[in-house]
Amino acid sequence: MEKDLKKSLDLIKRGVVEIIDEEELAKKLKKAFEKDKPLIIKAGFDPTAPDLHLGHTVLIHKLRHFQELGHHIKFLIGDFTALIGDPTGKSETRPALTPEQVQENARTYKEQIFKMLDPEKTEICFNSIWLNNLTSMDMIRLCAKHTVARMLERDDFQKRYDAQKPIAIHEFMYPLIQGYDSVAMDADVELGGADQKFNLIVGRHLQREYNKEPQVVITMPLLEGLDGVNKMSKSLGNYVGITESPSSMFGKLMSISDELMFRYYELLSDLSIEEINTLKDNIKTGKLHPKEAKMNLSCEMVKRFHNEEEAIKAREGFDAQFKKKEVPDDIPQILIGKNETKIYISKLLKDSQLVESGSEAKRLLKQGGISIEGKKITSDEIEFNLDSAVIKVGKLKYLRIVRSQDI
Amino acid sequence: MEKDLKKSLDLIKRGVVEIIDEEELAKKLKKAFEKDKPLIIKAGFDPTAPDLHLGHTVLIHKLRHFQELGHHIKFLIGDFTALIGDPTGKSETRPALTPEQVQENARTYKEQIFKMLDPEKTEICFNSIWLNNLTSMDMIRLCAKHTVARMLERDDFQKRYDAQKPIAIHEFMYPLIQGYDSVAMDADVELGGADQKFNLIVGRHLQREYNKEPQVVITMPLLEGLDGVNKMSKSLGNYVGITESPSSMFGKLMSISDELMFRYYELLSDLSIEEINTLKDNIKTGKLHPKEAKMNLSCEMVKRFHNEEEAIKAREGFDAQFKKKEVPDDIPQILIGKNETKIYISKLLKDSQLVESGSEAKRLLKQGGISIEGKKITSDEIEFNLDSAVIKVGKLKYLRIVRSQDI
Repeated sequence: MEKDLKKSLDLIKRGVVEIIDEEELAKKLKKAFEKDKPLIIKAGFDPTAPDLHLGHTVLIHKLRHFQELGHHIKFLIGDFTALIGDPTGKSETRPALTPEQVQENARTYKEQIFKMLDPEKTEICFNSIWLNNLTSMDMIRLCAKHTVARMLERDDFQKRYDAQKPIAIHEFMYPLIQGYDSVAMDADVELGGADQKFNLIVGRHLQREYNKEPQVVITMPLLEGLDGVNKMSKSLGNYVGITESPSSMFGKLMSISDELMFRYYELLSDLSIEEINTLKDNIKTGKLHPKEAKMNLSCEMVKRFHNEEEAIKAREGFDAQFKKKEVPDDIPQILIGKNETKIYISKLLKDSQLVESGSEAKRLLKQGGISIEGKKITSDEIEFNLDSAVIKVGKLKYLRIVRSQDI
Repeated sequence: MEKDLKKSLDLIKRGVVEIIDEEELAKKLKKAFEKDKPLIIKAGFDPTAPDLHLGHTVLIHKLRHFQELGHHIKFLIGDFTALIGDPTGKSETRPALTPEQVQENARTYKEQIFKMLDPEKTEICFNSIWLNNLTSMDMIRLCAKHTVARMLERDDFQKRYDAQKPIAIHEFMYPLIQGYDSVAMDADVELGGADQKFNLIVGRHLQREYNKEPQVVITMPLLEGLDGVNKMSKSLGNYVGITESPSSMFGKLMSISDELMFRYYELLSDLSIEEINTLKDNIKTGKLHPKEAKMNLSCEMVKRFHNEEEAIKAREGFDAQFKKKEVPDDIPQILIGKNETKIYISKLLKDSQLVESGSEAKRLLKQGGISIEGKKITSDEIEFNLDSAVIKVGKLKYLRIVRSQDI
């Protein structure tokens, strides 16, 4: 176990949104050192089929920090409520999972998270184990530990209540159940997204009610997607899945802005804060080209989720592609839909603001001033089946088309 | 089973506040006649030590009506929540009952209710039987069947929420649990006090949710106490306990107003509505003295909770007491506290408006114009240990002092 308190705190604090509270965390760490008893670090995950992207790994990366410091990870799969399905019986899209499905999903989780976490130091837990054992009386006692008014303070509940949208009473039980997990697991620390703060604090509250030491709550930021604006999510298509191919992962990461690159370095990479600061300085003073820094980050990610060999190959492939076509590094990019097989050059160019109007694009097409992947085109409507391609407009302008991987 | 629908409905409707709804009730009755299958009539009672007064018997009397009509009574002792006690752990005055205590209280209930109900046709139920068997998942499913907003519509919840007084979440579960009892018991009809309407309707709602025929809800009025104003309650001291002595019961009932007497006749006596109307007519036309009618009511109650012999004795005792003292029948009455051993004549007379002022009373005392139980008194402060006594003021005014039986 890492016994240097400052070193521990520095690593833990890296990239977090909030620690509630730091003093308690320091106390817990000291006690852990003294008794040589690792802290129990809890993080809860949905039991539905996982398909993790880099956004999810921010939290898993923080778990790894704790693991590096010698603490014990309890990776909780919240299967209890999934075994119920939708108790209102109204949603057909939320059928109850069978125990077999839960086990299968857990296997997929392991496959993905063990790319980052040490399996030897990671305990996979299922809350159905203790929650199924609660009696009806236990449930009443649990519900007695929180008030309606405090529950309605949760932002989404308050909004729905004010908008007169129905909140079923069992929805009030879920944060309590999640909080009870912390009681049952003896969690010292719980990690979660910043949007989970309310529920994580219920855990603290309940541990006190059950005469246990309250957990420290650490919230992590929601990672911005490739666009640098919205949070990374599959439905927005601005994500990098951790099971994506090396070249796709590499290419997507090369498309992010310099600013976002630093954010990703902080939240995703293994570089220390000092190393990241040096890197920033070197870019500032011109010692390092931003593209090089982005390459390194992309390499690190491909290496993490595939291996070193694949990372080198992806880098070489990316390099070769651009050298061959003598395409500049920092050209604009536009996403097209996963299943789009017809593209309209004039629309793409106008949307990317490479031309003033659709008619300007059509004039350029007629004049033979536009090519895709080095091949001159004259028609506006193009059959398109590649995953990505570069359009050259005139002698100086380029646009990269990238097909969204969104499912 | 009584198969005359009109006759059944007339008896059931007697004295009720509301039937939700009457059409459904008629349908259920018809089905019961056709299939020769009695309706299941549910009424729930507190599992704490019972000490019933006439106010409680309004509902039990209505159960008897159903029993007379041939239906099946399920007398529910809600022991489940009592076995938990106060789940917030804050109230020391609500300790959990043991199963033995529940059984003992049930025994006391039986002793009292079987003065009115036929033990052969009365099933005593305990909801812990089915509620203890609910799993944590069942509880969630149950809570999914109602919304927070609808629960907050209950008058007392709304008031507490608006006044920012805490409502613990488990309090929302209690109406659901009570409603689930109706599901488990297959109740056709549930009886309750008018103040229970919300909870009774939750039962209807839940039966529908569990694909059962919803129960008919019948609410009974809260009986006015001896003062004719407040509802009968032990804490107000305006009650007649069903285990009180024959003479105490008789005496208390003789003190009510004529108007209240008709109310008691309707809600408590076995006289038919026609008989009560005849009685009213006879009083109006002077054929019957109101005192006689009150005597008959008092007799009926003593006979119900003791026996006929005791009823006759109580009547004779009451008669003799008043004849002996040549005290008029309709003198005012004033209650004193159970443990009051010192009384102040001037205060009693002034409070009863027999004198204009305390000083008038004191003047009368000096002049020898006041006697208690025939004995002249001159002191204002009197040691007093009797249960009741008559004060005579001057030649024409009387006041009866009655000691409250309030515990």
